[in-house]
Amino acid sequence: LKKPNALVIQSGGPTAVINRTLTGLLSGFRSQKSIGHIYGASHGIHGLLNEELIDLGSLSIEMIHAIGHTPGAALGSARLKPRPEDLDRVFEVLAAHSINYLFYIGGNDSAEAAQLIRQAANDKKHDLVIFHLPKTIDNDLVITDHCPGYGSAAKVCASILLGDDLDNKSFYNGIKINVCMGRHAGWLAASTALAKHCLKNEDSEECGPHLIYLPECKFTEEQFLHDVQTTYDRIGRATIVVAEGIAERLKFVGEKDEFGNSQLSGSAKLGEYLEKLVQKNIKVKTELGKLRTRADTWGYMQRSFPLVVSETDFSEAYTIGQAGLRYALQGETDKSLVLIREQTAEYKCHVQLVDLSHLAQKTKTMPNEMINTRGNGVTNLFIEYARPLVGELPYLTDLGRLPLKKKKLSAYVRK
Amino acid sequence: LKKPNALVIQSGGPTAVINRTLTGLLSGFRSQKSIGHIYGASHGIHGLLNEELIDLGSLSIEMIHAIGHTPGAALGSARLKPRPEDLDRVFEVLAAHSINYLFYIGGNDSAEAAQLIRQAANDKKHDLVIFHLPKTIDNDLVITDHCPGYGSAAKVCASILLGDDLDNKSFYNGIKINVCMGRHAGWLAASTALAKHCLKNEDSEECGPHLIYLPECKFTEEQFLHDVQTTYDRIGRATIVVAEGIAERLKFVGEKDEFGNSQLSGSAKLGEYLEKLVQKNIKVKTELGKLRTRADTWGYMQRSFPLVVSETDFSEAYTIGQAGLRYALQGETDKSLVLIREQTAEYKCHVQLVDLSHLAQKTKTMPNEMINTRGNGVTNLFIEYARPLVGELPYLTDLGRLPLKKKKLSAYVRK
Repeated sequence: LKKPNALVIQSGGPTAVINRTLTGLLSGFRSQKSIGHIYGASHGIHGLLNEELIDLGSLSIEMIHAIGHTPGAALGSARLKPRPEDLDRVFEVLAAHSINYLFYIGGNDSAEAAQLIRQAANDKKHDLVIFHLPKTIDNDLVITDHCPGYGSAAKVCASILLGDDLDNKSFYNGIKINVCMGRHAGWLAASTALAKHCLKNEDSEECGPHLIYLPECKFTEEQFLHDVQTTYDRIGRATIVVAEGIAERLKFVGEKDEFGNSQLSGSAKLGEYLEKLVQKNIKVKTELGKLRTRADTWGYMQRSFPLVVSETDFSEAYTIGQAGLRYALQGETDKSLVLIREQTAEYKCHVQLVDLSHLAQKTKTMPNEMINTRGNGVTNLFIEYARPLVGELPYLTDLGRLPLKKKKLSAYVRK
Repeated sequence: LKKPNALVIQSGGPTAVINRTLTGLLSGFRSQKSIGHIYGASHGIHGLLNEELIDLGSLSIEMIHAIGHTPGAALGSARLKPRPEDLDRVFEVLAAHSINYLFYIGGNDSAEAAQLIRQAANDKKHDLVIFHLPKTIDNDLVITDHCPGYGSAAKVCASILLGDDLDNKSFYNGIKINVCMGRHAGWLAASTALAKHCLKNEDSEECGPHLIYLPECKFTEEQFLHDVQTTYDRIGRATIVVAEGIAERLKFVGEKDEFGNSQLSGSAKLGEYLEKLVQKNIKVKTELGKLRTRADTWGYMQRSFPLVVSETDFSEAYTIGQAGLRYALQGETDKSLVLIREQTAEYKCHVQLVDLSHLAQKTKTMPNEMINTRGNGVTNLFIEYARPLVGELPYLTDLGRLPLKKKKLSAYVRK
């Protein structure tokens, strides 16, 4: 009797550890006997529709190990929603290659696609074991404590902000705006708050980020300008983080994909808009020069930076891949995997099964208890939540306050 | 007899290791007997004009060590050119605090400022030992083999590009434009070429960056589009790096500082302009979806990322600080320091003195032999030059080509 084969799909935006989930899955493949071959679809649904498949069974252990350290989707990814006619083709290809196991590594759009394939399999009476293996830097899947991919992206964001705030602080009168990823949920923007705890010799009110704007909260230009002015009046500068999703409040809408998501990343409009707003409205108090405003939009490095990976994330992404194969071989199907945080002093999570139907088309935003009352920052509850996911951050210092006593010179006003 | 005091100034754009030069200087301070106190100017010339000085003599060894690991200018920086009336004030403050040693950590604008202070000291017959200690991520100081600060920024840029190209490659039809720092010189943009050598299982023609545009070369839209189309036709995608200085060719000019430099960083206009050009003009060959164009402008993280520092750079920045103090105590003055690469198999540099007047208002651009004949990439000579400065980069892999034999299915065209 010929054994059925398995297919792995990577879908949606890659993460720094999406390939670790793939290699976790592959790691268990050699020691099982139920599945014949294991294939990968080249560029997600594209590869399935066009019969562009890759044989993953021939990879050496060294190669599997190395792939796990590599960001980007090793199989290639896509952002396509399967249409009814696509689903007919999907099963033509699955049948032609005797594929009865499907592993879909992705976020909530991928869970939705997996659901559509599940329903079509039922209609077509195609025997199919299907698993959704979670990954998303957005951390917006429901039920799970957090998502593989988030910890590493959060570590990149917190590290960028830490350096950026020190850079901004180097100059007088600096208002720096940073736009980070996060369409509907502010988890990534919030993670920059960890940078506040990386400096010795500084109270955390002095350290950036001073203001964080999350898609979960109301955003008005008046409130934003009031917050910036207050921060500037207090410490003479401000380092600000804005989730890209705020652009939708301000009616910036770009290209849309087939799931109806507009393209926000790769556009610097939001940062530039807020920078102009600051330039026009903030009242400068010092005579030492004009306001120095800058805006950076962090872009794709947030999810692809190869040198800054959270160890927890790296390890959990692998565990998810291993568990996916194990559960599939145990006869489970139509499931996704979630991470459940244990109530222990030291951070620990275990994997649990959840019905696929519980994830599709749902988004987990930040709960109110993790957002401060003014809606421009996070609470300690968030810091405690995020710290173990991100892991070690650099512990730096600054000079603190060592002012030399002034001699009795007249004041100097530079013209 | 009261001993003269010393003052340290940090000026211009900070780097990841500018504070290492400060701590190298401080490290030798305890064991010398010629200088009484060592002060820092708060925010460069600002602090000198306003008598905002910091006493650096009281820092503990642990603190000095920690400061050396911290990006940003620990003393604060400025971008002001001293005017004649400023110079009068500078010497009022220097005299009031008995300062006869001045160390100016900065790039070529700082060398120019140091020169102006030197001339004023001569006019005023103020006994002054003055040293310029080089730092700039732009790597554009003359005479020296390279500049402290460059290796770490280059490591950040090469790492971002490495991950970014893998991210871009994850999707079909991806044209990704990355704008990196570099106004007059392409050293940083060029450094991204090191990413080409970080992937196993790939020939370097397949790896990004596929095209690099340097301020040293002519830039025309026709040539750019021709290059992108050729790359796209060959491999179905393109990862492109553009130095921000190209904006000046296209008449994007922002705010200017007092040295006449226009503000290019923190503006995403160049990337967006080139992205639109690509969207309008590139002919797409595949039916698998429309062109996916994205543009990122990397911004300030290039010079401030705390976790990605070149070890060579980290070490040399310290050496420069140590040498500056040592030469000043030996009676040298009006000097800057340069790094001379030795003709050994293993990379090695030593420090040499050079007259201050040789650096001001001069810029070292990339020599022709380091740029390819088409003016859209670098030669091996550059790779050999840059590799030891940047140090270790991640060595990753991709799946290579493992296509599964197709069954005899009809072709599928998605509408």
